Amino acid sequence: MTKQEALFEYLLRIGDNSLIMGHRMSEWCGHGPILEQDIALINIALDHIGQAKNWLTLACEVEGKERTEDDLAYHRDVLDFRNLLLVEQPNGNWGDTLVRGFLFDTWNYYFAKALTNSMNTQIADIATKSLKEISYHKNYSADWMVRLGDGTEESHTKMQDALNRLWMYSGELFTMDEVDEIMLKDVIGVDLHLVRKEWDDDVNATLTEATLHRPPDAWMQKGGKTGIHTEHLGYILAEMQFLPRAYPDAKW
Amino acid sequence: MTKQEALFEYLLRIGDNSLIMGHRMSEWCGHGPILEQDIALINIALDHIGQAKNWLTLACEVEGKERTEDDLAYHRDVLDFRNLLLVEQPNGNWGDTLVRGFLFDTWNYYFAKALTNSMNTQIADIATKSLKEISYHKNYSADWMVRLGDGTEESHTKMQDALNRLWMYSGELFTMDEVDEIMLKDVIGVDLHLVRKEWDDDVNATLTEATLHRPPDAWMQKGGKTGIHTEHLGYILAEMQFLPRAYPDAKW
Repeated sequence: MTKQEALFEYLLRIGDNSLIMGHRMSEWCGHGPILEQDIALINIALDHIGQAKNWLTLACEVEGKERTEDDLAYHRDVLDFRNLLLVEQPNGNWGDTLVRGFLFDTWNYYFAKALTNSMNTQIADIATKSLKEISYHKNYSADWMVRLGDGTEESHTKMQDALNRLWMYSGELFTMDEVDEIMLKDVIGVDLHLVRKEWDDDVNATLTEATLHRPPDAWMQKGGKTGIHTEHLGYILAEMQFLPRAYPDAKW
Repeated sequence: MTKQEALFEYLLRIGDNSLIMGHRMSEWCGHGPILEQDIALINIALDHIGQAKNWLTLACEVEGKERTEDDLAYHRDVLDFRNLLLVEQPNGNWGDTLVRGFLFDTWNYYFAKALTNSMNTQIADIATKSLKEISYHKNYSADWMVRLGDGTEESHTKMQDALNRLWMYSGELFTMDEVDEIMLKDVIGVDLHLVRKEWDDDVNATLTEATLHRPPDAWMQKGGKTGIHTEHLGYILAEMQFLPRAYPDAKW
């Protein structure tokens, strides 16, 4: 694998995480538990989609073909997506969405923070620009973890159930493969082992405050980073890509 | 509206009912409450899709353009679909699916039976071929209505809830518009007022046996027959049409 190929893959992974997370959050539009949260969720969705656009535009530049960020978003199929399995998991109930966000946002914060030191200045710039938004996402998720985990018996149970269900997708946040190693060696990418330490401390502190029990690190699912996805991604793409596929020459 | 245009519309309506009903039933594949019912549901789905193919093929012949039945199924958007609102409603729980099936299948049986007398021999032939399958659908639905309606308190409540929820989509089964009138006048189509009488008697008898209460005929939703659909149809099409839209030249 050439460095250019690794860099392209790396950017796809980051961009696809934002894109799919953004799409999932956008599904809440008009369905939030209260109006204020509905609006908050959509703002978060827009943050993610804006970041996705930046990362995928850079990916296209690195690829050096004719593809645009819209081609990447709307004209790839499941096997060509590189997002983590965690972010494609269904919204489920409000607790499921919050726990998924909490696990991802906490990771995304330390990941993006480390990326601000990338030797690739374009990457460092996008990471720096994104970090303020991601910091807000992280705080939003953590606040709700505490509020509902340390809330009523019913809310506590739902949060713990969601945590138990989604925990198996947390392992993939930290797997390092050839792409990660090439990026790390060139001081472009991030050492996920270091991110893990920060994530662990932060997640543990919030879970303790939320009176939630951290599930054991048993069997972990993985595959999204290399294009092996759960059944959910296909349904996301079918919906997300319908318009540009049905009307290929449509312009806003 | 010319007779040819009316006939084309009429065939679209019949074909789209089968196509969308078939797609909805196919969503149960692998999710049926017990294996035997899972297989039954998929067989019903296949019946509908087979019938859809016959009706839409005839529609293409009447239209006399270059379109094929696959074009009609996979390359039309929401506003061009002519199915009843009832059949696009979500599967919901097992009771919701059964009630939707019961209301539609009972109607479809008397409708198709009347169509076997059509002066258009192609229509009469397809209706005759389909009637055996539709008769099975009708019996299947009615059996389950009785089994669960007159079952446990929980199953009774779920069936009654489903009936109350879906009842507002039953009115459209019997609305007659210009297309219906033209087809009726030429002894090609069906008098829905007569179908209503048979449907009423049959539905009432089954509901009584099922100890279910027939909801009052209050406000009725309509629009599907003329292309005004509920939000659900867009999601169905996004999923149903993904493959031919993503891979336009794909061949089996």
